[in-house]
Amino acid sequence: MITINEHYLKLQASYLFSDIAKRVETFQENNPDKEVIKLGIGDVTRALPKASTDAFHAAVDEMATEKGFRGYGPEQGYAFLREAIAENDFASRGAEISPDEIFISDGAKCDTGNIQELFSQDITIAIPDPVYPVYLDTNVMAGRTEEFADGRFKGIVYLDSTKENQFVPALPKEPVDLIYLCFPNNPTGSTITKEELKTWVDYARDNKALILFDAAYEAFVQDDDLPKSIYEIEGAREVAIEFRSFSKSAGFTGTRCAFTVVPKECVAYDKAGNSHSVHTLWNRRHCTKFNGVSYPVQRAAEAVYSEAGKAECKELVEYYMKNAALICETMDSLGYKYDGGKNSPYIWIEGNMDSWEFFDMLLNKAGVVCTPGAGFGKCGNGYIRISAFNSYENVVKAMERIKEALA
Amino acid sequence: MITINEHYLKLQASYLFSDIAKRVETFQENNPDKEVIKLGIGDVTRALPKASTDAFHAAVDEMATEKGFRGYGPEQGYAFLREAIAENDFASRGAEISPDEIFISDGAKCDTGNIQELFSQDITIAIPDPVYPVYLDTNVMAGRTEEFADGRFKGIVYLDSTKENQFVPALPKEPVDLIYLCFPNNPTGSTITKEELKTWVDYARDNKALILFDAAYEAFVQDDDLPKSIYEIEGAREVAIEFRSFSKSAGFTGTRCAFTVVPKECVAYDKAGNSHSVHTLWNRRHCTKFNGVSYPVQRAAEAVYSEAGKAECKELVEYYMKNAALICETMDSLGYKYDGGKNSPYIWIEGNMDSWEFFDMLLNKAGVVCTPGAGFGKCGNGYIRISAFNSYENVVKAMERIKEALA
Repeated sequence: MITINEHYLKLQASYLFSDIAKRVETFQENNPDKEVIKLGIGDVTRALPKASTDAFHAAVDEMATEKGFRGYGPEQGYAFLREAIAENDFASRGAEISPDEIFISDGAKCDTGNIQELFSQDITIAIPDPVYPVYLDTNVMAGRTEEFADGRFKGIVYLDSTKENQFVPALPKEPVDLIYLCFPNNPTGSTITKEELKTWVDYARDNKALILFDAAYEAFVQDDDLPKSIYEIEGAREVAIEFRSFSKSAGFTGTRCAFTVVPKECVAYDKAGNSHSVHTLWNRRHCTKFNGVSYPVQRAAEAVYSEAGKAECKELVEYYMKNAALICETMDSLGYKYDGGKNSPYIWIEGNMDSWEFFDMLLNKAGVVCTPGAGFGKCGNGYIRISAFNSYENVVKAMERIKEALA
Repeated sequence: MITINEHYLKLQASYLFSDIAKRVETFQENNPDKEVIKLGIGDVTRALPKASTDAFHAAVDEMATEKGFRGYGPEQGYAFLREAIAENDFASRGAEISPDEIFISDGAKCDTGNIQELFSQDITIAIPDPVYPVYLDTNVMAGRTEEFADGRFKGIVYLDSTKENQFVPALPKEPVDLIYLCFPNNPTGSTITKEELKTWVDYARDNKALILFDAAYEAFVQDDDLPKSIYEIEGAREVAIEFRSFSKSAGFTGTRCAFTVVPKECVAYDKAGNSHSVHTLWNRRHCTKFNGVSYPVQRAAEAVYSEAGKAECKELVEYYMKNAALICETMDSLGYKYDGGKNSPYIWIEGNMDSWEFFDMLLNKAGVVCTPGAGFGKCGNGYIRISAFNSYENVVKAMERIKEALA
C-alpha cells in the first residue's frame, strides 16, 4: 500500500491570501464602483530593465540557430553569470566569494525550501516570528516539528521579533543548530547592523550552528553602514549560507532567477563529529534534482550587472523607495508607529488592534488592501504589512484615501 | 551542532560522465588530429522551433512594458499552457486529463526527483535496472535504502530489464508500493505495449500501489498502437502520475519546461488506511517549494502546440529518427543485436563484451563517444547506448567510421 508522508498533514492550511481575496471580493461586490488598490502581496509591478530584455532577446536569437543553440547547461549556472555576481555583489562589498561558490537557481523560494534536505532530522531549528512561511512549512513537511498548538509548532525555537527588540531577535537561550535570518526583513522591513549580525555569526561559530541568511531584499538597503551580505561579517564564510534573488532587485518575479551562496569553508557534521563540506552536499543535491536555469533567463540576469542594467535597477529601487517614503510620511502624519520603509519595500505598521480588524478597516474605509501581520506568525498580530510595490500614482491615491479615512 | 543528512553519504559517486570525459581527453591528447563525434549524452542539438522563439520574443516584449509586465504567476503554471497540453497531449489521444491536473515545472528531472517527498519513508520502491539515476539517487538521499553492496542498494526492488524480457520488466514477485516506469525507455529505447502497461496498472490497482510513469520520450513513438501516455490505459487515473517534458520533443533542454500530471482520482493512504488525494499533496508541495516557470518560457512552450509549432516539432523528431534509423542500419549490417531506435532516440546495443571495453573500442578505433550501459545499472553491463541526438552529417560520419573499424 502506498502511504503518504504524514508530516504534510501537520501543515496549517494557509488561508492568508485566500482569506484576503475573499474579503476583497465581498467588498467589491458591495462597492462595485470603488477601485481597490492592492498594497498586499510583495510582487513588483514595473517592466524589466531594458538591458535585461535586450539580452533576453539576443539569447533567444541564439537559441533559434543551430550554431548558437544551447542544450543542457551546467546545473550550477553558467560561468558568465556566476562571475558577474561574484564581482558585483560580493567583491565590490569586500566580501570574498568565488564564482564556484554561487549556485544559480530559479528562485530563492525553492532554495530556502530545499536547503533543509541537507541536514539531519533531529537538528534544532530557530525560526523568526513573524516570518516568511516557507522556512517553517518546509521543515514541517520534512518531519522536524511536533504538533501544532496555540499557533506554534512544538519542536521549533521561535525567535520573537517585536517592537521591544526593534524586530531584530535576540540570540536564543537554548542551543540551536540551524538558524533562519532574513534582513532586510520580510515582513517587518527591519534591518540588522553589522555589529548585531556579528553576534549571530559568533554564536554560530561558538555553537557549531549554521545560519541561513535570506538577503532577497538587499537591493533596498540605502544606508551604507548596513550589511547587504552576511559575508561582510568576519567569520561568516564558515557558518553561513546566503540566499539572493533577482526578483525584487531587477523585477524578475515572473522571469525567475535567483542564487545561493555556499562558501567552501562552510561545514556540517556527522553524528560522529566529523566535518563535511556543505558546498559538496548542496552541489550533489543541485546536480541530482535540478537541471539549471533557462539560458535566456541567465543572460537576462547577467545584463543586470552591465552599466545600463545597474542604472536601471537603481532607478527601479528608487522608484519603489519613493513609494515607501510616501507611505512612511502618511503613517507619520497619522501618528502610527511602524518599522521598515527606509531600507526595505515593506512598512510594518502597529495598528493597536487585531491585524484583521486593521485590514478590514483599511479595505472598507479606504479601499486599500494590505497584509494582516498575523498571517506571518503569532508576533505579527496587531500589525499590518504595506508593500511599496505598485505605481507611484496608486500609492499617492491610496495614501490620500487612508489619510481621509483615518484622520 | 549542525548535523548532516547522512543518507547523502550512501550515494555512489557517479563517475560515469567524468570517466567518459577523461577517456575522451586522453584519446584527444594522443590523437590531436582526430575529430571526436559525441553520441553519448542525450542532449538535443537542433535550434528551437521558430514558433517557440517567436512566442518567446513576444513575451519578452510584454515584460518590457509596464502594461504587459507579469510578476509572480500561478505556481502550477498559466492556464493558457495547461489548457493547450490537456487538449493536444491528452484529449487528442482519448485520455481524459483536465488542465488543473497538469503542473508546469522547470524540468522532469526536478519533478521525478521531488515527487518521492510526498510518500512515507517505509514504502517499498521498485526501480528498473538499467535506469535513469535520478529515481534511485533521490530515494537514497531521502533515506529509503540501506547500504550499497554488489552494485545495488539493499531495500530497493530492482526490476531487471534484459534481452530475455525485451527490456520490459516483469511484475515484481514481492509486494511493492511505488513503481518507477519509463517508456520509451531511457537508456534501452524499449517500448511497452498497451497490454503490457495494462498489467502494471492492474497490479497497482490490486495492490494499492502507485506508478510513476516517465514519458519524457513519448514524442519519438512512431507506432500508433503504442501508448504515449499511461492515461490511455483504463484505470490509470487512480494509480498513476505521469512526467512529461518539452526537452526532447521541442528541444527545450536549455530552455527548461516540463510538466507532471496528477489526476484527481489518484490516492495514497495514511497508516490508518484512510485515502488522501495525491493531487492535493503535490499542489501543496508545488506551492510551498516552487514559484512557477518563467513567463516567456511558458509562452514558448505554448507555441509548441500551434499549427506551425506542431509541424516544426514533428520535423525535429523526424530528423533525429532519421539518425536513429541510420544507426540501426549500421548495427544490422555489422550483425550487432540492439533494442530501441524505432520509437526512441536511443539505441541499446549488445556488445558481447564489457561496456567499458566496448566504449573504448568505439572511441579508439572510430573516434565515436557512446555511453557504457553499466553506468545505468547492473543489467546495463555488456551494453552501450548510442544517442541519435546530433547532426545527420555527424551521424553519417560516425557510422562510416564504425563500419570501417568494426567490419
